[in-house]
Amino acid sequence: MTPAFRTIALIGKYNSPEIAESVLALTDFLVKRGVTVLVEVNTAAMVGLVDSGDLSTATYKRIGEVADLAIILGGDGSMLTAARQLAESGVPLIGVNQGRLGFMTDVARDGMLDAVSDLLAGKFNSEERILLEASVLRDGQPVFHTLALNDVVLNKGDMGRMIEFAVSIDGEFIYNQRSDGLIISTPTGSTAYALSANGPILHPTVPGIALVPLCPHALSNRPITVSDSSHIEIQVLPPHKARVHADGQARFEIIAGDLVRVARSPRTIRFLHPLGYSYFAMLREKLHWSETPRML
Amino acid sequence: MTPAFRTIALIGKYNSPEIAESVLALTDFLVKRGVTVLVEVNTAAMVGLVDSGDLSTATYKRIGEVADLAIILGGDGSMLTAARQLAESGVPLIGVNQGRLGFMTDVARDGMLDAVSDLLAGKFNSEERILLEASVLRDGQPVFHTLALNDVVLNKGDMGRMIEFAVSIDGEFIYNQRSDGLIISTPTGSTAYALSANGPILHPTVPGIALVPLCPHALSNRPITVSDSSHIEIQVLPPHKARVHADGQARFEIIAGDLVRVARSPRTIRFLHPLGYSYFAMLREKLHWSETPRML
Amino acid sequence: MTPAFRTIALIGKYNSPEIAESVLALTDFLVKRGVTVLVEVNTAAMVGLVDSGDLSTATYKRIGEVADLAIILGGDGSMLTAARQLAESGVPLIGVNQGRLGFMTDVARDGMLDAVSDLLAGKFNSEERILLEASVLRDGQPVFHTLALNDVVLNKGDMGRMIEFAVSIDGEFIYNQRSDGLIISTPTGSTAYALSANGPILHPTVPGIALVPLCPHALSNRPITVSDSSHIEIQVLPPHKARVHADGQARFEIIAGDLVRVARSPRTIRFLHPLGYSYFAMLREKLHWSETPRML
Amino acid sequence: MTPAFRTIALIGKYNSPEIAESVLALTDFLVKRGVTVLVEVNTAAMVGLVDSGDLSTATYKRIGEVADLAIILGGDGSMLTAARQLAESGVPLIGVNQGRLGFMTDVARDGMLDAVSDLLAGKFNSEERILLEASVLRDGQPVFHTLALNDVVLNKGDMGRMIEFAVSIDGEFIYNQRSDGLIISTPTGSTAYALSANGPILHPTVPGIALVPLCPHALSNRPITVSDSSHIEIQVLPPHKARVHADGQARFEIIAGDLVRVARSPRTIRFLHPLGYSYFAMLREKLHWSETPRML
Repeated sequence: MTPAFRTIALIGKYNSPEIAESVLALTDFLVKRGVTVLVEVNTAAMVGLVDSGDLSTATYKRIGEVADLAIILGGDGSMLTAARQLAESGVPLIGVNQGRLGFMTDVARDGMLDAVSDLLAGKFNSEERILLEASVLRDGQPVFHTLALNDVVLNKGDMGRMIEFAVSIDGEFIYNQRSDGLIISTPTGSTAYALSANGPILHPTVPGIALVPLCPHALSNRPITVSDSSHIEIQVLPPHKARVHADGQARFEIIAGDLVRVARSPRTIRFLHPLGYSYFAMLREKLHWSETPRML
Repeated sequence: MTPAFRTIALIGKYNSPEIAESVLALTDFLVKRGVTVLVEVNTAAMVGLVDSGDLSTATYKRIGEVADLAIILGGDGSMLTAARQLAESGVPLIGVNQGRLGFMTDVARDGMLDAVSDLLAGKFNSEERILLEASVLRDGQPVFHTLALNDVVLNKGDMGRMIEFAVSIDGEFIYNQRSDGLIISTPTGSTAYALSANGPILHPTVPGIALVPLCPHALSNRPITVSDSSHIEIQVLPPHKARVHADGQARFEIIAGDLVRVARSPRTIRFLHPLGYSYFAMLREKLHWSETPRML
Repeated sequence: MTPAFRTIALIGKYNSPEIAESVLALTDFLVKRGVTVLVEVNTAAMVGLVDSGDLSTATYKRIGEVADLAIILGGDGSMLTAARQLAESGVPLIGVNQGRLGFMTDVARDGMLDAVSDLLAGKFNSEERILLEASVLRDGQPVFHTLALNDVVLNKGDMGRMIEFAVSIDGEFIYNQRSDGLIISTPTGSTAYALSANGPILHPTVPGIALVPLCPHALSNRPITVSDSSHIEIQVLPPHKARVHADGQARFEIIAGDLVRVARSPRTIRFLHPLGYSYFAMLREKLHWSETPRML
Repeated sequence: MTPAFRTIALIGKYNSPEIAESVLALTDFLVKRGVTVLVEVNTAAMVGLVDSGDLSTATYKRIGEVADLAIILGGDGSMLTAARQLAESGVPLIGVNQGRLGFMTDVARDGMLDAVSDLLAGKFNSEERILLEASVLRDGQPVFHTLALNDVVLNKGDMGRMIEFAVSIDGEFIYNQRSDGLIISTPTGSTAYALSANGPILHPTVPGIALVPLCPHALSNRPITVSDSSHIEIQVLPPHKARVHADGQARFEIIAGDLVRVARSPRTIRFLHPLGYSYFAMLREKLHWSETPRML
């Protein structure tokens, strides 16, 4: 039988040599089944793998060009990094956690080979997650551009105190906000930083973008979810400066007058899951929701 | 010019004779423009109107059958009542507040005649709002059914203490929750009761339903927004009893084992607004969001 | 050596025959050490104990008169009940949980005999917890009076919608609040119902009383902690009715115009703890605060 | 009649020449009543005052040495600055707001002269507010020390992501927290930054210190109020760096391993208020709590 994926990339958690065993086991397993294996170059260096036969080391760029699937070994942070790197390519991702269930890494290491075996047999679920794209315009010229799977965050950066900024959506002024900043979150990001800022959880099938203020001065500046077709613009008001973060990984310093634009990207990320995967079951476990009646 | 609406119903706030002047002014204005006017029977009795020429009193049932538009004079509560009564009919609604801007009554009494004049000239915006339908099954038999524009609330009713219930969505078990209850809210309802329970604001264009727990025992039982295609089921666990409310207007006593089903109704409500209406501008005013920079 | 406590009462969780073994083991252990044991009458009936030699069954009233210590076997609910019954007597309490650590029942069943042995040897910590007293005046006459260890709650009771009431402190008007109700909580109660309503945790050594609104209509009606010397008065405004609860165990129906008075009681409750007991350690375990660094 | 205060300092809002008129009016008023007036040197420069007769310019240091009272013309920020500068001196403060009621500046500019007239006649209320003192130890050596009237904030400073730190109180480990930081707030500060981070309001008479996490990773890391006799220690865990702020005015860069100590200062600040001042009335106005029943 021809495997459902001919070329599979393996990407390991940054600076985590303890995943070597998993990478080697997976490589061995895949090569034996006739799959061409690409090991991301930093991962390869970390675990001591070199090119040989059906195994090549590869940059993210090359993975994006030729892989049919990327398997991420690590936590949600590793998944974020890979998603950002591969967003333009359309390569689907699946996450193997290293012991603790992640919001995005739902395959347990112990069941990894069974799960990958099912993948090769075409037994898996697939779902699309939206991405945001953020850009910064200074004097009308683009000076920064990035994608985000979780969130774009405007915050006070190095400023010691609150910042003030104007928010508009689809060209309409919404409000001036005085706060520590604003999280603009996808449904995927709604269980990450936005949740700790009292934001709402959005199921991945809800086509919405959440705006979650960070410590707003006005108590009525509550989180709001807008349509994912919204074009959001933020302008930092003088004399304030600010900083833009994307997924906690890219950042850019904003000066007063800069225009920050955030909207849904035309790109999406495709996550694969084992058959039987359930978003709610994952959430229940991560958030310790009770499955069975509990008594005081 | 033929008016855009031939038959218009006027519905006044319950038990509020002070709106008589507005009703009479509107009636006079409409009749002069060749519109057939129906005054809801309780409203008519309250303000002392009787049938005459182009003016008839009418029940909600008749309004639903023949009116092209219903103008509500009152607050958000009056709008809720009318929406629930006319939901099956498809008659669009427009709300004239009596001095204080409402979330749903956005025409000011002072500008009422100008706004209605524009309506007749076909100058208005229109938007659809989703409705929920809730039903209760006991031993498999339906014992209660209702619609809701704002929210369906399960709460502890007459119980002095927390209740416990199981929630499932689309047939999948989500969690057992121990709390004072659960608000299931439309985007329209997200600025009403759900907001006071720390729920997220949902823009009316977001096709979502918010589940907002009331005083949940587990601190991680956070509000969650699911797709508006979700079928939500709640089963109260023995020995608890509970109560279901719809829009704070209809209610039903639940016993352990009853199944409460909530889903989006195939019906929608159509709200008309003056040209230039803005949801965000309304929100900004209602929530006292600052329009201009403020200084400490 | 003379035991530090000559007469000890045993009080078991309501309707929980599974605690029989613990009660019998404790009784046996105490009698052998020359302690006079009183078993609360309902507990005795539940586990099948009758008067014999150094063991007598006793009502709460008698326990209050003659016991030097009461050992509660159960959960926080059992502790609340016993504290309310014995508040006037000054008998100190210690709680033995039945498997799951409680906020107030900090002795584990497995280590019960060792802990009691230490108690008899005078090795324990002691702390005072404040109580609230609540009374209701109708037409100037007292119609209800109760004590509370956790909280006095005014809520909408059987009303389907928000209630409105005026709050004053030490004779000064504070605000009219429109909400589902108001929790008035001791530090002890701050980790109970008040916590689920977004109230602040108060360490037991903070001499404060927390006012925590339930689903307030105004988003700025935030929890506030006042001095425990405050005299709080609440008057429900017409046409609203309400209900007063104390510790979720006593309740009273309020009509518009009734005056609800809440203040610290001159009584306190004394809790005993094993040496080494730590409020923060208990909190850390109950709230799953991380003791060791965790990585994403 | 001898005025209750012989030497009064006037301190104006930073960089706000528009207060010149108020400063001059006050100076004139006080000098005529035989009061020796000190105008803070920056204020004097800003409004164009020079030494003459009963009026001298003075540094904060000199004001602290000789003034009996300091009148602050500005907002809460100006009050914070003056309180920090004069904390060691014991000079009482009174705040005159410039049009918008402040949490600490409760005299309206319009009624300024009447209020000051009452002050001179000994007609005023007085209250003590606690201060925090914060110090940083590096390798056991103090490298930073400051006072705070509102709050000491540990935050992630220039770090893009969450920081992790261990908190202990009175020598006992409380928890490791992963968050954007932690606000340690006095009752005075409880209506400032801490409030926007979902912290509890503490009445100034409550002898407590609030610990309010900023965007904590664990949803159960709720605000907690501890006794104001608590000694709080925070140690930032490697590899994290952090920053300490006091009242948003002083700041210091923390490296992993530094020990941040926060406790109540032996110093207090004394605020004077007009007779009839009410903390709750001020809060009601600032937070828009309704004084009279409102209807939907």
